[in-house]
Amino acid sequence: MQPAEKRTAVPDTVIAAMRRTNELFDAEAISKQNLDALDRVYTTHARVLPPGAAMIEGHEKIKEFWRQAIAGLSLTGVKLTTVQAEPAADGVIEIGRADLSVAGGQVLTVKYVVCWKQEDGEWKWDVDIWNANQ
Amino acid sequence: MQPAEKRTAVPDTVIAAMRRTNELFDAEAISKQNLDALDRVYTTHARVLPPGAAMIEGHEKIKEFWRQAIAGLSLTGVKLTTVQAEPAADGVIEIGRADLSVAGGQVLTVKYVVCWKQEDGEWKWDVDIWNANQ
Repeated sequence: MQPAEKRTAVPDTVIAAMRRTNELFDAEAISKQNLDALDRVYTTHARVLPPGAAMIEGHEKIKEFWRQAIAGLSLTGVKLTTVQAEPAADGVIEIGRADLSVAGGQVLTVKYVVCWKQEDGEWKWDVDIWNANQ
Repeated sequence: MQPAEKRTAVPDTVIAAMRRTNELFDAEAISKQNLDALDRVYTTHARVLPPGAAMIEGHEKIKEFWRQAIAGLSLTGVKLTTVQAEPAADGVIEIGRADLSVAGGQVLTVKYVVCWKQEDGEWKWDVDIWNANQ
């Protein structure tokens, strides 16, 4: 059993794969409003816990959530920055910061925890929760 | 590599240990304001991501956070309910619901994700993030 203070590094290849998924979320799903790209971002049974709403599960509900978020916030992009990442069996636990570009050129910053899993050879978000800093 | 849809159960003995930790949080740390009990709830390098504030790390900052939260909310208890739990290497990822008893007999409900690790033989919270449902 590994003590909490001895965190081992996530392999560079996995970090690179995670970065590709995070960029897909920004460049395809949000910026181009290609919501089907979310199938490649979230696992089939992914759970999303958004502030101000109940937990949702699965691709269809997640797409509907982001469709409404893009429209409601006039969201044009989401830059994701990994702050910490540590291995967790077949997954990775990531703590990060998201900068959301919204209406009027404003940027909303939130912090998040994503539990990653590999599915169909891709690294995807399996649990996704965030909240505001202020 | 285990596909996301094949979640294996967390052993009953671990669930029981997690329940003891969650009850310690409610019964000792919050209800009795015995903040030193948080040393047995959170790992040494635990990170807490509270809504409306930046991430904090480590026992001292976590105790100060809860000291202020207890005073600010007139918090008298926090009932924690595990909604989902799945193994993650040497840890467990828990999705749950917390009912916070606050001033005037009101109850605030939030949802949370806790990444658990074993430290010194006890199951403790290593990453703790939550947000409101409304």
